[in-house]
Amino acid sequence: MNVTRIPSFFTLRNARTGRTVLVAGLFAVFALAAWPGALTAQEAVSDTGFILNTFSFLIWGALVMWMCAGFTMLESGSVRSKNASVICLKNIGLYAIAGLAYFVIGYGLMYTDVSGFIGKLDLFYGPSADELALIGGDEGALAAVVDNGYAVTSDWFFQMVFVATTASIVSGALAERVNLWAFFAFTAVLTAIIYPIIGAWTWGGGWLYEMGFTDFAGSTIVHSTGGWAALAGALVVGPRWGKFRRDGSVKLTPPSNIPAVTLGVFILWLGWFGFNGGSVLALDSAANAVLMSNVIVNTNLAAAAGVVTAICVSRPILGRVDLFAGLNGAIAGLVAITAAPDVQDAKLAVLIGAVGAVFCTAGLRFLETRRIDDVVGAVPAHLFAGVWGTLAASFSVGASFTTQLIGVVSVGAFVFTVAWVLWTVLEKTVGVRVSKEVEEIGQDAAELGIDAYPEFVLMVDPEDGTDYRD
Amino acid sequence: MNVTRIPSFFTLRNARTGRTVLVAGLFAVFALAAWPGALTAQEAVSDTGFILNTFSFLIWGALVMWMCAGFTMLESGSVRSKNASVICLKNIGLYAIAGLAYFVIGYGLMYTDVSGFIGKLDLFYGPSADELALIGGDEGALAAVVDNGYAVTSDWFFQMVFVATTASIVSGALAERVNLWAFFAFTAVLTAIIYPIIGAWTWGGGWLYEMGFTDFAGSTIVHSTGGWAALAGALVVGPRWGKFRRDGSVKLTPPSNIPAVTLGVFILWLGWFGFNGGSVLALDSAANAVLMSNVIVNTNLAAAAGVVTAICVSRPILGRVDLFAGLNGAIAGLVAITAAPDVQDAKLAVLIGAVGAVFCTAGLRFLETRRIDDVVGAVPAHLFAGVWGTLAASFSVGASFTTQLIGVVSVGAFVFTVAWVLWTVLEKTVGVRVSKEVEEIGQDAAELGIDAYPEFVLMVDPEDGTDYRD
Amino acid sequence: MNVTRIPSFFTLRNARTGRTVLVAGLFAVFALAAWPGALTAQEAVSDTGFILNTFSFLIWGALVMWMCAGFTMLESGSVRSKNASVICLKNIGLYAIAGLAYFVIGYGLMYTDVSGFIGKLDLFYGPSADELALIGGDEGALAAVVDNGYAVTSDWFFQMVFVATTASIVSGALAERVNLWAFFAFTAVLTAIIYPIIGAWTWGGGWLYEMGFTDFAGSTIVHSTGGWAALAGALVVGPRWGKFRRDGSVKLTPPSNIPAVTLGVFILWLGWFGFNGGSVLALDSAANAVLMSNVIVNTNLAAAAGVVTAICVSRPILGRVDLFAGLNGAIAGLVAITAAPDVQDAKLAVLIGAVGAVFCTAGLRFLETRRIDDVVGAVPAHLFAGVWGTLAASFSVGASFTTQLIGVVSVGAFVFTVAWVLWTVLEKTVGVRVSKEVEEIGQDAAELGIDAYPEFVLMVDPEDGTDYRD
Repeated sequence: MNVTRIPSFFTLRNARTGRTVLVAGLFAVFALAAWPGALTAQEAVSDTGFILNTFSFLIWGALVMWMCAGFTMLESGSVRSKNASVICLKNIGLYAIAGLAYFVIGYGLMYTDVSGFIGKLDLFYGPSADELALIGGDEGALAAVVDNGYAVTSDWFFQMVFVATTASIVSGALAERVNLWAFFAFTAVLTAIIYPIIGAWTWGGGWLYEMGFTDFAGSTIVHSTGGWAALAGALVVGPRWGKFRRDGSVKLTPPSNIPAVTLGVFILWLGWFGFNGGSVLALDSAANAVLMSNVIVNTNLAAAAGVVTAICVSRPILGRVDLFAGLNGAIAGLVAITAAPDVQDAKLAVLIGAVGAVFCTAGLRFLETRRIDDVVGAVPAHLFAGVWGTLAASFSVGASFTTQLIGVVSVGAFVFTVAWVLWTVLEKTVGVRVSKEVEEIGQDAAELGIDAYPEFVLMVDPEDGTDYRD
Repeated sequence: MNVTRIPSFFTLRNARTGRTVLVAGLFAVFALAAWPGALTAQEAVSDTGFILNTFSFLIWGALVMWMCAGFTMLESGSVRSKNASVICLKNIGLYAIAGLAYFVIGYGLMYTDVSGFIGKLDLFYGPSADELALIGGDEGALAAVVDNGYAVTSDWFFQMVFVATTASIVSGALAERVNLWAFFAFTAVLTAIIYPIIGAWTWGGGWLYEMGFTDFAGSTIVHSTGGWAALAGALVVGPRWGKFRRDGSVKLTPPSNIPAVTLGVFILWLGWFGFNGGSVLALDSAANAVLMSNVIVNTNLAAAAGVVTAICVSRPILGRVDLFAGLNGAIAGLVAITAAPDVQDAKLAVLIGAVGAVFCTAGLRFLETRRIDDVVGAVPAHLFAGVWGTLAASFSVGASFTTQLIGVVSVGAFVFTVAWVLWTVLEKTVGVRVSKEVEEIGQDAAELGIDAYPEFVLMVDPEDGTDYRD
Repeated sequence: MNVTRIPSFFTLRNARTGRTVLVAGLFAVFALAAWPGALTAQEAVSDTGFILNTFSFLIWGALVMWMCAGFTMLESGSVRSKNASVICLKNIGLYAIAGLAYFVIGYGLMYTDVSGFIGKLDLFYGPSADELALIGGDEGALAAVVDNGYAVTSDWFFQMVFVATTASIVSGALAERVNLWAFFAFTAVLTAIIYPIIGAWTWGGGWLYEMGFTDFAGSTIVHSTGGWAALAGALVVGPRWGKFRRDGSVKLTPPSNIPAVTLGVFILWLGWFGFNGGSVLALDSAANAVLMSNVIVNTNLAAAAGVVTAICVSRPILGRVDLFAGLNGAIAGLVAITAAPDVQDAKLAVLIGAVGAVFCTAGLRFLETRRIDDVVGAVPAHLFAGVWGTLAASFSVGASFTTQLIGVVSVGAFVFTVAWVLWTVLEKTVGVRVSKEVEEIGQDAAELGIDAYPEFVLMVDPEDGTDYRD
């Protein structure tokens, strides 16, 4: 949430999360408390605010969890059939790993006593002692519980599904050749340590937060982080065999299941209402309800603009009206608006989404020219559009351009470097890449012994043997 | 909502939407306000009503948006594989176009200062000045904001997803032969102008509203409007080549992906809880909560009755136990109950859904006899069941049969005529239909250069060359 | 909900459901009521609790309904393509039948005036007279309505979607050979009578409830009931032809569509947040909000642990890293935690989910050794993990192990026996099994005349003719 635009008398900095929330609803409560005899009423009303804040985290968080299904459909439909089962396993596995890693140490590193750079080792984050007392029947704990503003595990849940999103971005870019176990190992470190450090700098109240860096729901913190990690992986793992030919041409590897890709994008679009809407972090006042509503509408408009723009610019940029570009345009629009979906003029949301889609579509082509193989276009959609959206917050919601740029560069430098080192270490130890033979057969048959569509007769993918690395 | 059944002292006509809402919850608030010193309490409590109304629009609206994914799955599974990519593009494109068109002019034409026939050109509908002041920190704007009952953009969001539903209905009926750009052009006009005019007549407080026309969530306003537009399109565009043979027989064109169709129907069923439940338009009182609950239960019962009935009557009507008819029966049941899901006796909901499914199943056969080619059965499910449901409101919730009939006929005459003219103009200018060659090859390869399932070996669709138009 | 752990002064036994709910929020209300002049405030505040309780049932219930789509995708992807349409029809049909049966008599048998063993014949359950008066405009009925705690139909809706889950479990286990009409007949009896009797014993306040049996959201009541019914069916119907060979080997019948199976599991995971979270049954107090939050987090952790564990143990148990086991591991983790997702130490949720996945994975192998053919692994995932989870409530939330065991055994004995008798009666009358010829051709073509993927070229399923029954 763009804290710079809200007068300080009107906000409450939450000690645990380092985020600032609108507390209009609580004003009436405190007024009531100052009113003789109204103590009971105070509890009742603030109770309602607590319930609504908690419920908002839970229901919107559930929609963000649903985005994992969206990435799964998008990716399993984008890869060739021979790798569709492995990508399914990677996606359900990463969601499980992310949840456990964030439970064991991630949340603590991100939010507990952040020193500026990182929080502390607060293992197995869970309900507060007051909360356990309250649900155990100790009414005396109510005030302390309500004072926190929301159930602590509801915030954990909402933050956890964001971690999973970051990991999902990586799986798509590296599909069809990254080793299953190397990917899971990377996911564990990404979600237990790398992402929490970026989160500590920002939402955790660390040094970027102190500078005034603005990233409402994570154009940089979530999407660019995932995009940088994916880019580092794509460079270390390298392109699929035969993707880039010696003559400079690029082998087409069309999505194997377009309806699945489309379903995935619709799921992501739906989930994004939770991603951005829930990032208001509170629903305890009319002001927050208005803000949440505006955020969701801007999110939708940016995505809509992304679709229309990507379809229109795909012909000049890619040489054809391109459905895949149009679908990625929706995602790019969503990523771009995520840094400032609270922009007051919705026409700016349309503009930001549209430009994000242009960067994404051009980025699809750009990566090909650099011989970087990103199977689903994750880097253009999440990194390029994320950078654009973060910088655009300077004119849309008045953030400092310099601060935004510092945020973009520092997050990029840190994540790319650490991810590159980690991928390289994995490369030297367990290996990050399946063999050329496995790549030809497909990871499904070779690694899992199970085909995605075992009964369907498939065309053989012709191996033309002209890889630029031959 | 059927306003005729609620005593006027108990309702509030909202100036912006022209809809009447139950305001039981506000009574306690006003009572509190009359009570010395309780002014602060009033604000706090009405704040809660405002939050709940807004949140109801947002969360149920998100489920209605999800219906677009349902239509996409239903349609992409219903068409032959060679046209499945184009239908995906049409669906994500129409949702984007509908959202932008309704933002730019649609909402204003439907709800701003409706004169009886149409509202005014209120471009780029967005948050009110009071709301912007409030989220900017001006507490003084709170009372004015709360007085509106809900965040204005939350209502926009909920109305916008309804527009998209209307457009979705058209894409299914005309699949496999309508030109992509003609369809997008039609969608823009439908969502920017045609649907908003029908909406202005009714929910916008126009002439049909004044007459007492009852259509709780849009059996006529949304579903029949989409159905009439689809029917006009089907007549102008004509049937697929070879669908109706000279000997009177009909070529079977079975759905290419039954699980996708089934998933689509489940998505629609889920989304319909938002469609009808959210159409209570308020969640600020126990009465509204009860009403929302009854509405959702009736919606589910009507759909369940539709499935069972359609399966049972499909054998006598269609000659076989028909899964596709059963799935359409769910939709028909949902469409039929949509005019009056607030019916007090749930047994009537069962009856209305069951009869809707009979009309739908018989309608599938009827259209074939008229040589009208509706690929997914959109006209039987949305138009025929919608007409039935609108008329059934006369006995289920006591609406005037005459008024209901006037509504059905006037909406039908207007939408069908305008849509027919528009399709005809498009036919004479850009052309509305792909060539016979494109139809044979499939729109995916011919128009997009991308197959839906490029690796799967498909059977060739035999061209038997006996079209009745040859 | 584990009622034994909540002091009685803090709870309210709901007369209709026999369930006990936390009522912290109401305390403030009663305090206010005791305060001179505050009567109006009482109504306003308790109104909010009523709205939130009702809305919680509706929105979480909608997510549980969505689980039917999850089962449909899981099952249609798990069967061979030649039976995928019939399984779609079974699933949408069972949801419709379950909803109608529970409306006509099921809810009454489960919750109305339960005598210990069963409730009464309370046909066509619907809104209370007070509720109808209130939405009809009679403000005088408000107090009586609010006093119930939630809209009565919202509870019906939430309970109904649980019934459907039970029926869904059966369809997967018996796929590919059970007769469509026998399955529908069994479903009607299961949802109208068998499940409601188990429900009456427990959530309805019957004899197991009186003993202190703990099953928060239905590890036994929903999942084991479905599992026992499926097991009885699997024994009566018998394995698919050729599944178990005379030489003791087992014919592989791999899932035909892995992405569909994966999507199904994600849908179930999402829906389970509603299944368990909504089973708090109230959202009217901070305590309940905290509890709901903890429940959802524990649910997610158990599922995550289930995935990771199943992937790890699949190699030793099944001889390969097994995606299908991993996906079933998620379900097993979810089923296992369902008896006590309110466990205070989330590490126990991880443990319970992990062990559930071990039982499930081992169970997949065990059933094969017993020549019991369960196409989707429903018995291991729902019955074995359900039994484990119910017993685990003894150490996780302090339930009596003896009582839990009595519950598990008595539910198992009753459901298995009745289901076995019912399947046998169906076998002797209408027949429960398709012919060997239909099984070879596939139910889609033979029973429905519609293929799931009619355009896709499929491999012929080789008939090796070595069935152990030959």
